[in-house]
Amino acid sequence: MGVMQEEHDDGSWLSESELTFVRSRLPILYVDAVPVRVDEKGVVTNFGLLLRAMPNGSISRAMVSGRVHHKERIRDALLRHIAKDLGADAKPKISAELTPFTLVEYFPSPELTGFFDPRQHAVSMAFIVPIEGECVPNQSMLDFTWITLEDALSSQLQLEMSGGQDKLLRKAMAHLNLMP
Amino acid sequence: MGVMQEEHDDGSWLSESELTFVRSRLPILYVDAVPVRVDEKGVVTNFGLLLRAMPNGSISRAMVSGRVHHKERIRDALLRHIAKDLGADAKPKISAELTPFTLVEYFPSPELTGFFDPRQHAVSMAFIVPIEGECVPNQSMLDFTWITLEDALSSQLQLEMSGGQDKLLRKAMAHLNLMP
Amino acid sequence: MGVMQEEHDDGSWLSESELTFVRSRLPILYVDAVPVRVDEKGVVTNFGLLLRAMPNGSISRAMVSGRVHHKERIRDALLRHIAKDLGADAKPKISAELTPFTLVEYFPSPELTGFFDPRQHAVSMAFIVPIEGECVPNQSMLDFTWITLEDALSSQLQLEMSGGQDKLLRKAMAHLNLMP
Amino acid sequence: MGVMQEEHDDGSWLSESELTFVRSRLPILYVDAVPVRVDEKGVVTNFGLLLRAMPNGSISRAMVSGRVHHKERIRDALLRHIAKDLGADAKPKISAELTPFTLVEYFPSPELTGFFDPRQHAVSMAFIVPIEGECVPNQSMLDFTWITLEDALSSQLQLEMSGGQDKLLRKAMAHLNLMP
Repeated sequence: MGVMQEEHDDGSWLSESELTFVRSRLPILYVDAVPVRVDEKGVVTNFGLLLRAMPNGSISRAMVSGRVHHKERIRDALLRHIAKDLGADAKPKISAELTPFTLVEYFPSPELTGFFDPRQHAVSMAFIVPIEGECVPNQSMLDFTWITLEDALSSQLQLEMSGGQDKLLRKAMAHLNLMP
Repeated sequence: MGVMQEEHDDGSWLSESELTFVRSRLPILYVDAVPVRVDEKGVVTNFGLLLRAMPNGSISRAMVSGRVHHKERIRDALLRHIAKDLGADAKPKISAELTPFTLVEYFPSPELTGFFDPRQHAVSMAFIVPIEGECVPNQSMLDFTWITLEDALSSQLQLEMSGGQDKLLRKAMAHLNLMP
Repeated sequence: MGVMQEEHDDGSWLSESELTFVRSRLPILYVDAVPVRVDEKGVVTNFGLLLRAMPNGSISRAMVSGRVHHKERIRDALLRHIAKDLGADAKPKISAELTPFTLVEYFPSPELTGFFDPRQHAVSMAFIVPIEGECVPNQSMLDFTWITLEDALSSQLQLEMSGGQDKLLRKAMAHLNLMP
Repeated sequence: MGVMQEEHDDGSWLSESELTFVRSRLPILYVDAVPVRVDEKGVVTNFGLLLRAMPNGSISRAMVSGRVHHKERIRDALLRHIAKDLGADAKPKISAELTPFTLVEYFPSPELTGFFDPRQHAVSMAFIVPIEGECVPNQSMLDFTWITLEDALSSQLQLEMSGGQDKLLRKAMAHLNLMP
């Protein structure tokens, strides 16, 4: 209900049946944000992970992710989803360059790309976003934690992530030269 | 009619009214390809430009551009649009890395980003694509030409491009270190 | 003299004759930083330009630029040169990703790449660096100014830049989607 | 001996003592090439790995790698090293964009970055290079093989690579979306 309210406010509301229709006909444009803490030199020290119910019904550690609205700039969609999921005081530092570190192709069948969303075909531009403020996760989230690089590499954590979220985290770590 | 036939064949057909509906509610996902000729070292020697009727009613030099279909991989969408616009013998060499050189945000009003499409809000992933074969432009195109780097910089050419196509060409040239 | 002192301190000192020798035999590794101011959304609002004596004897608006030392990390070289040129309170926000927006090949003859350094062949990894603090330029600099995007595009400014610095600024602007 | 001859010919020859000197004073600029086979769509199907004696005395599977010469363009250095290591008929397709997929910082101690070269501090721009022709490895190489993606992920292969070459391969695979 909270989500519908939010979407209604900025004019991008889609009824349940309209959303079902567009998901059956078009790829849906998404942004993903990998929240990170950096030290004074700009080196990543922690990854921020939500714990949430996923579209496939599982509970998973997950990145910030959401739809780009009609007539919304990519940068604004990123800021909106970070504020919605991590609170108004997160103070995200979106890169001036706005270059995605990867494009994620989510498909309704898991085997095609390893990125799985049973609801839809979505294409997401994924960004690494340093967070300087305090995060207060949205009520629809079960938890939010800053994990260390060591934890990010643990096999335990991999098991707590589904739908390709573990793969997206490893891809971010490789991009940041943080893979062993 | 040719376009509707083509889209119907792969199951992504949208009726006129359905297309109007989705365009009024969602950003539409596109791919743009900047066709180039390269020498034996891989250095760009020419840009390939179509001459076509644009959504805004003007005639403009333009890149290859088109919608990503439902359940279609980005790479496949690129190959499909290049084959459709430049013919089956174009022999495009899509990069193994599939990294867009820029994201283009087309809006129904020209002043927001300089990229203008009166029909819709579209987000396009733009790629530089070396073409090794012969190009036979689609019948819906008025012309296709390989232009030199010198011509690409001429103010005459800029005037022959609308909707932000000139800006996209300059952005590609800057990315390729071909700006003066 | 100030420079020699600084370089001696961290063990990377090269005598005048040693520097002449290595410049005649090897490409020298550099980092360039394009200082920018960003707004609360991360959008660039200003470029920071030094005014300095150039290797070719001219006076030019210029970016922060300097040599990477022996056994020095790229990130540390960037931070050292920004602190040296813009002062200890500049508070640069080096990207976590440390991806150069371009590689600049400076040659001792101007016509090869448009990037000209009569002293040497240098290869520079160039980064866009948001600056959050106050800049107090080094005494060897004649000035430091934050210019607007409008000024950055003016033909007057282009004339105040030599050795390819104008080209590097335009390349940064194209990368940031700030070209008209 | 062959190498010294080759380097002498293009004027970049350094005597043993000169090379020792520059390695003790400056980071040395390198290029690394990850040879790949691609299918007709441009998707990577195989990685090409040399088997060679490494600077640290080990035998390792390795990428093409070498120094950039004085006054040599980066693209030319890449082409020269590929021709030297893989033969004149390799037909490499260097990207028009010449964007490194990563910067590799090799240090004389292994723990700093995981990239280890006991002889020197080297900074390498690493590129993924599709190879279309036949490879005939240089006589100084023990072997050259095209490995499958499956083999590239095997723990056996990881053990056959030293000095960080395994890490560079994994980084290339992550960049290409080929990690599981």
